Amino acid sequence: MSTPTDSLPPLIRRLTPVVHAAVRQSGGAERQQITPEQAAAIRPTAQAVARRIDQTLLKPEVTPAQVEAACEESRACRFAVLCVAPTFVRLASRSLQGSSVAVGSVAGFPFGADLPAVKALQAQMAIDDGAREIDMVLAIGRLIAGDFAAVAEDLLAVTRLSHARGAQVKLILECGLLSHEMKVAACLLAMQCGIDMVKTSTGLAGGGATAEDVALLRSVVGGRLGVKAAGGIRTMDQALTMLGAGASRLGTSHGVAIVRQIEAGLPSGGAATGY
Amino acid sequence: MSTPTDSLPPLIRRLTPVVHAAVRQSGGAERQQITPEQAAAIRPTAQAVARRIDQTLLKPEVTPAQVEAACEESRACRFAVLCVAPTFVRLASRSLQGSSVAVGSVAGFPFGADLPAVKALQAQMAIDDGAREIDMVLAIGRLIAGDFAAVAEDLLAVTRLSHARGAQVKLILECGLLSHEMKVAACLLAMQCGIDMVKTSTGLAGGGATAEDVALLRSVVGGRLGVKAAGGIRTMDQALTMLGAGASRLGTSHGVAIVRQIEAGLPSGGAATGY
Repeated sequence: MSTPTDSLPPLIRRLTPVVHAAVRQSGGAERQQITPEQAAAIRPTAQAVARRIDQTLLKPEVTPAQVEAACEESRACRFAVLCVAPTFVRLASRSLQGSSVAVGSVAGFPFGADLPAVKALQAQMAIDDGAREIDMVLAIGRLIAGDFAAVAEDLLAVTRLSHARGAQVKLILECGLLSHEMKVAACLLAMQCGIDMVKTSTGLAGGGATAEDVALLRSVVGGRLGVKAAGGIRTMDQALTMLGAGASRLGTSHGVAIVRQIEAGLPSGGAATGY
Repeated sequence: MSTPTDSLPPLIRRLTPVVHAAVRQSGGAERQQITPEQAAAIRPTAQAVARRIDQTLLKPEVTPAQVEAACEESRACRFAVLCVAPTFVRLASRSLQGSSVAVGSVAGFPFGADLPAVKALQAQMAIDDGAREIDMVLAIGRLIAGDFAAVAEDLLAVTRLSHARGAQVKLILECGLLSHEMKVAACLLAMQCGIDMVKTSTGLAGGGATAEDVALLRSVVGGRLGVKAAGGIRTMDQALTMLGAGASRLGTSHGVAIVRQIEAGLPSGGAATGY
């Protein structure tokens, strides 16, 4: 079988020294605080926050009926994305047809230890079934071992195929398992390999999103890539903290509750009060 | 792309009513205790227990160096299998060449929510890389929803391809997420679809192996299939309990400690004392 990685080796050879040099020179990126102007630019209306939410439904026991219920909620709340497991992408795409909600799915989830051709097939089938965004987990053990070539091969296999089909790719770093330098290296690799958004965590290993990690990722990728905070985000306060730290997207299975909290506490278009 | 599921629909149509009828008639299989004779037939020498152990190394942060160390340990302990993530099958196969230890890997792990063609590709690539046993996770949400046809399609996609290449397939049920009837249905589907061994859990969702589940699985599959207990097995006592309940294989990341405990506490070939 022909795989999308057939022509990758020359590119990987070219990228690897670039990333190694960047990590050496930076000694890791400096942590950069978001400015008050940037924080103020985020207007935490319920609608604005909903448009930054990837509502997520990935637990192994999820049933088709639960997927359909989540589609209805996502349509009503106008989330950016409803992210479902590969087996449910077709169902969600059918159910969300004509809505403003995009369907997302995952590749190499949640351990990142699949072969590049498998992640590429997961992305391809999800996109063919209607997904517009793919959240892939990087090859964590390879990154920890400093094998940037293997990490890049994996990223390129998915980004090339997905972009050719008009879909975006997010890279899940699983920050809780990585050192500061590894997080920086992963962001640099993501930028070199055409990833559209870096994402803190799966929520399943090593803890969830932290404001520190969101700020670090944002400081490395600047305005070039999106930053998605995910893992353990259950309340409005947590959601607003992540947005304030530099997140452009939130992954949560509690999107409905978060939006309702904002609707209850904040007049539409008004400033935050009492939070 | 041609998938191994191209010719499945007629078979699935044939299997589904068979399984539905079997589940209806049985009302779930009766729980059957293992007899004292059966328990006594297990001679818990370190070597005999090691030959029933799938030493397992699937955490996302595992590095190539850790895989190589595990290969050395597995070779020394003579485990049945060393089970590694897809990305490390080639490395483990090279390292374990000429030893008595088979390499195992996983498909649809740990959530079971991948499409059949993806699980088939995972199995195919692992087998091509040297794996002889594939532990696949069933489509949990589909089973819970009673969609036995979807579960069967998934199983057949992997078993046909794997058996054609001389590899065995274990089916992970994730018992902690299933009712009694669902566990029975999964075992019946496994038998109908050519699965070689049913396995209690991934160890990651809904709790690990219990002696009750092992006995239940054994009571349904009888002597036709193997039964693998996995999830939370860390000590010799737990290992012997699972074998006594009817397990023919144990999945654990603590195989070395378990074998050493047996070596320390039990004379080779002798009866258990003090346990």
